Amino acid sequence: MGASGYTGAETLRILLKHPNVHISELIGEQSAGKNIQEIFSNFYGKELPVIKSFEDSNLSDLEIMFSCTPSGVLSKIINKIPKNITLIDLSSDFRFQDVNLYNNYYNFHGNPSFIKNFVYGLSEIFRKKIKGSKFISCPGCYPTSALLPLVPLLENNLVQTEDIIIDSKSGITGAGRNMNLDLLFSENFGSMKAYGNGNHRHKPEIEHIIDIVTNKKIKISFTPHIIPINRGILSTIYVKGSYKKVLEYLENYYKEEKFVKINKNGTIPKISDVVGTNLCRIGIINNQESDRLTIISVIDNLVKGASGQAVQNMNIIMNYPEELGLDNHSLSP
Amino acid sequence: MGASGYTGAETLRILLKHPNVHISELIGEQSAGKNIQEIFSNFYGKELPVIKSFEDSNLSDLEIMFSCTPSGVLSKIINKIPKNITLIDLSSDFRFQDVNLYNNYYNFHGNPSFIKNFVYGLSEIFRKKIKGSKFISCPGCYPTSALLPLVPLLENNLVQTEDIIIDSKSGITGAGRNMNLDLLFSENFGSMKAYGNGNHRHKPEIEHIIDIVTNKKIKISFTPHIIPINRGILSTIYVKGSYKKVLEYLENYYKEEKFVKINKNGTIPKISDVVGTNLCRIGIINNQESDRLTIISVIDNLVKGASGQAVQNMNIIMNYPEELGLDNHSLSP
Amino acid sequence: MGASGYTGAETLRILLKHPNVHISELIGEQSAGKNIQEIFSNFYGKELPVIKSFEDSNLSDLEIMFSCTPSGVLSKIINKIPKNITLIDLSSDFRFQDVNLYNNYYNFHGNPSFIKNFVYGLSEIFRKKIKGSKFISCPGCYPTSALLPLVPLLENNLVQTEDIIIDSKSGITGAGRNMNLDLLFSENFGSMKAYGNGNHRHKPEIEHIIDIVTNKKIKISFTPHIIPINRGILSTIYVKGSYKKVLEYLENYYKEEKFVKINKNGTIPKISDVVGTNLCRIGIINNQESDRLTIISVIDNLVKGASGQAVQNMNIIMNYPEELGLDNHSLSP
Amino acid sequence: MGASGYTGAETLRILLKHPNVHISELIGEQSAGKNIQEIFSNFYGKELPVIKSFEDSNLSDLEIMFSCTPSGVLSKIINKIPKNITLIDLSSDFRFQDVNLYNNYYNFHGNPSFIKNFVYGLSEIFRKKIKGSKFISCPGCYPTSALLPLVPLLENNLVQTEDIIIDSKSGITGAGRNMNLDLLFSENFGSMKAYGNGNHRHKPEIEHIIDIVTNKKIKISFTPHIIPINRGILSTIYVKGSYKKVLEYLENYYKEEKFVKINKNGTIPKISDVVGTNLCRIGIINNQESDRLTIISVIDNLVKGASGQAVQNMNIIMNYPEELGLDNHSLSP
Repeated sequence: MGASGYTGAETLRILLKHPNVHISELIGEQSAGKNIQEIFSNFYGKELPVIKSFEDSNLSDLEIMFSCTPSGVLSKIINKIPKNITLIDLSSDFRFQDVNLYNNYYNFHGNPSFIKNFVYGLSEIFRKKIKGSKFISCPGCYPTSALLPLVPLLENNLVQTEDIIIDSKSGITGAGRNMNLDLLFSENFGSMKAYGNGNHRHKPEIEHIIDIVTNKKIKISFTPHIIPINRGILSTIYVKGSYKKVLEYLENYYKEEKFVKINKNGTIPKISDVVGTNLCRIGIINNQESDRLTIISVIDNLVKGASGQAVQNMNIIMNYPEELGLDNHSLSP
Repeated sequence: MGASGYTGAETLRILLKHPNVHISELIGEQSAGKNIQEIFSNFYGKELPVIKSFEDSNLSDLEIMFSCTPSGVLSKIINKIPKNITLIDLSSDFRFQDVNLYNNYYNFHGNPSFIKNFVYGLSEIFRKKIKGSKFISCPGCYPTSALLPLVPLLENNLVQTEDIIIDSKSGITGAGRNMNLDLLFSENFGSMKAYGNGNHRHKPEIEHIIDIVTNKKIKISFTPHIIPINRGILSTIYVKGSYKKVLEYLENYYKEEKFVKINKNGTIPKISDVVGTNLCRIGIINNQESDRLTIISVIDNLVKGASGQAVQNMNIIMNYPEELGLDNHSLSP
Repeated sequence: MGASGYTGAETLRILLKHPNVHISELIGEQSAGKNIQEIFSNFYGKELPVIKSFEDSNLSDLEIMFSCTPSGVLSKIINKIPKNITLIDLSSDFRFQDVNLYNNYYNFHGNPSFIKNFVYGLSEIFRKKIKGSKFISCPGCYPTSALLPLVPLLENNLVQTEDIIIDSKSGITGAGRNMNLDLLFSENFGSMKAYGNGNHRHKPEIEHIIDIVTNKKIKISFTPHIIPINRGILSTIYVKGSYKKVLEYLENYYKEEKFVKINKNGTIPKISDVVGTNLCRIGIINNQESDRLTIISVIDNLVKGASGQAVQNMNIIMNYPEELGLDNHSLSP
Repeated sequence: MGASGYTGAETLRILLKHPNVHISELIGEQSAGKNIQEIFSNFYGKELPVIKSFEDSNLSDLEIMFSCTPSGVLSKIINKIPKNITLIDLSSDFRFQDVNLYNNYYNFHGNPSFIKNFVYGLSEIFRKKIKGSKFISCPGCYPTSALLPLVPLLENNLVQTEDIIIDSKSGITGAGRNMNLDLLFSENFGSMKAYGNGNHRHKPEIEHIIDIVTNKKIKISFTPHIIPINRGILSTIYVKGSYKKVLEYLENYYKEEKFVKINKNGTIPKISDVVGTNLCRIGIINNQESDRLTIISVIDNLVKGASGQAVQNMNIIMNYPEELGLDNHSLSP
């Protein structure tokens, strides 16, 4: 559902190569009646269902539904979705357990009583809860890049809770496929900018999840930036702690994970290391003359930051190997 | 062999996901002793053999060797390679059956008597010969994009042999990973240029193969251009013929092919339709007021134009399904 | 007029540094009431008139008006513009002396009887007519790049009239600042495409002007492409003629010109040589084994292809030095 | 001197349009004997002196010399330069008054006793000292972007000295025109990376100048990043202080300056606002729930960060209007 957007198309691209998945329906409102190839020509030559509107779609035989609609859509129609369907939502509708926080940053929530059914789908951190759930709310792209390094460190008091600064840089697909002059090629080529006015919607999401996991009510500084590339987020995270302990702890914490990798030998990852993959790569810089560390975390915003993590969550729920359909190297160069 | 170059790394990237392939050796001269991850950080976290020099490498157990060295290297050492190894060469050393033609455009050939053992690896056109061969010379990237539409049309007299013009635009990876100020980011960003002075090495390659297949000695105009992207070739080919007949003939000729697709309904392909895939997509524009047709052919220069076609040729030789390890959609956006 | 578009803003940028120009009014319909800095933040800090609608603007004191509106707008309102104003139009409304040709490619013309008052503003070719005119219709960007090399050669029979092929590549600003999903950053980054289906509106413009100047009714093949940069057109033009004679003739024809330069010593120009300048640079490639020449012509589509040529025409009309306000080098890199 | 590098060419580009400047000599070692147009084709058609080696150049009639050589070159030859020449150095050789600090971060200094003759050429901060000096050491590009907002605030205790974080993003021209595989187009396109390992050479430069101006020995966190564009630096600076007071103070401090502009109305600048100009634009984001401010500072690294500031310093020394030759708008788009 939401097939004409970038996360919808990316979810489809990944699922088409997943050995255990069959695509039964593509749902879209503005694109209803079209073939998805008319919108995303890279699917040219592939046989796929014609896109239907939600009202016209046949949900009765579906086992799993990926919802890639804009904020505020799913919460209004969720009661019309059969209860036997496992619902994996990529929007923000059910990311906040606290409806007031949601209402402060988004429009008035369409179905507050349903929130409690959802589990936050940050796969490596909430794997156990995800396994037993039928309702998954996948994290925002910036929160994924920030929470994967920060949650383990804050949980175990390896970094201070004060003065955490997250300076994030994102490719433009993060803004979606929307009619907006700010998203034109000519407005972005050869430039970059900060945005969000110190209060981007992903800031309270990061703080809220840290609160839930660590029981610490902290305030972060978060500045998102747009860089002129399509895919990828690089978050530069400034914390206070011991370089050696932080590095060891993260290496140990993630040592069995397929999709979170800690760089070794003082190397740090760059965006091209992860484009097209479900990886989060993390490197740590030792600011030698101060007690500050700089953590570099990179993901592909459309994969680990959206559709890839959604499919990873499906694999967890269905007891498939977690890397099924997600096990590829980035194109490089 | 040639692991530190772009086609070497791309061949490795594809083979790592090929279910029937095990990587035994990585060979490189300048990179000998290194882990390939030091050069291509996207392989970070993968266990791979350390790169060895050709002299130090153990060739005795190899079944297939992909040679991705610069022009002139393989021909000098080919006699040292055990004869039981199937050799798939991505360089230009054995593309010309006529050694004089080679000598005119490259350095003096290192092993002229060996040329006759090689089959030109344009998979869809020479599939039968490839199947029975142990020595494959894979086509250049520009020739692949031009010959796939042109060879069937010229063979069957559907376009005139006179005044064929091929105007090709390539991403910068086509120039390889070389120390050359012309390849710096800052020299190419926001610009594009023509090059080759009317006599690029791929011009005689195209003419030579047309001669071999169709027995027609023709002269083309060929202008290659560099565009500021990493991957992809778009060739705009101007020929004279009947739009309707050309379209029908190509659709029919390639209708069973997995990797050559003719666009329908007047649509034409763009580079992002094929990046990261082994596809060649072809569209035809009807220049309504003249007898000229414009054929648009797009490939990923590193995949169908190099490493992907090399693996496709391996699949043909080994009697594997031809799309094994090559069956993915392009990232888009 | 048309201040919120790219050619409007570019005309303003150039005029702000023109020593003999004072900006009295900025006119725009959708942007009426705004400061232009809200749309183009590079003008931040500059005192400029608030944008007014055409109806609300005060035209009485204007000496010159630059009209940068979309096609079809100026022809409908031109009778409301005081007759003492010199009008320099950057749209297509008055480029065709033949109204039927216009009607075939655009919407029905809004004021056919006014067409005869306009002179086609290809500065170097029509300088004398421009000097005495109050109504200038500036050429399209592709025609500027193609006609500057072709007109002198066709006039003097130095190239054949048959089989002229123009393969043009343009930056994305050529498509304007429009709400169109095809113009999004993410749809163009890392890709390129041909468009126009063999019948782009600039094709009849090129043929029409060649007809007027040389009295030859010829048919060209013209394929425009979009490349992922902001500014610049590179046209690769295939003609038949003598390399030596063509080169000598063009060198001589343009030897006194400030803004048309013929490359020497076998070098050919690239787009970065002209970005931000009013130059047209032309180089010629000798296709040694055929009678075909390849002419490479590069311009900045927003400067020589639009606003720069418009200001050059103003300089001609006003008897200013032709390079006044236009005499800068391209940024490079 | 240093004509074949990017800052050399950029200095030349600016000086060619400076009404009071005549170019007498171009000096380069590796490029000696060449025309600069062979290296930078955007100068094509301009009459300029052939590049000479330092030994072969005639310095006797020079009034001003711009030195754009790599680090360590000027200090070794400075005694051979006639003492009547005003010397404006764009390298790092004379930026540190403390030679030990220099030796820690660069090679052993070639002429420590000469350091004291130099003034640090951050124009707006050291204007008075620059006016009376014959030896100017122009600041690094990152320090320019960081010091222009920070120095006034630290001088007057408007922000805390603790926990200052500077997260900078630079276009690739900042790395110069060097044979380095890391600078290839294909290694950077579609990606970005942090670098410098927490200890980039511009970190001590920033700390050293803050020490000199404010007499405060502080330690900053500084993380530089490379983004895939040619020109521009965006520094995101995290400090603690009062949003209202900081904004008012900076507006007042820079209100008469031509080249430092504070954004109003909560807007913040982006890189395209300054590309090709000598501007530093500064905007401030109010992080509402904390005592932290985020300062956004953007410059063109080759202009205000190098060649433009050098020419501004020449204007100061020569008592020319400070904006002479530097008064242009950025190209946008």
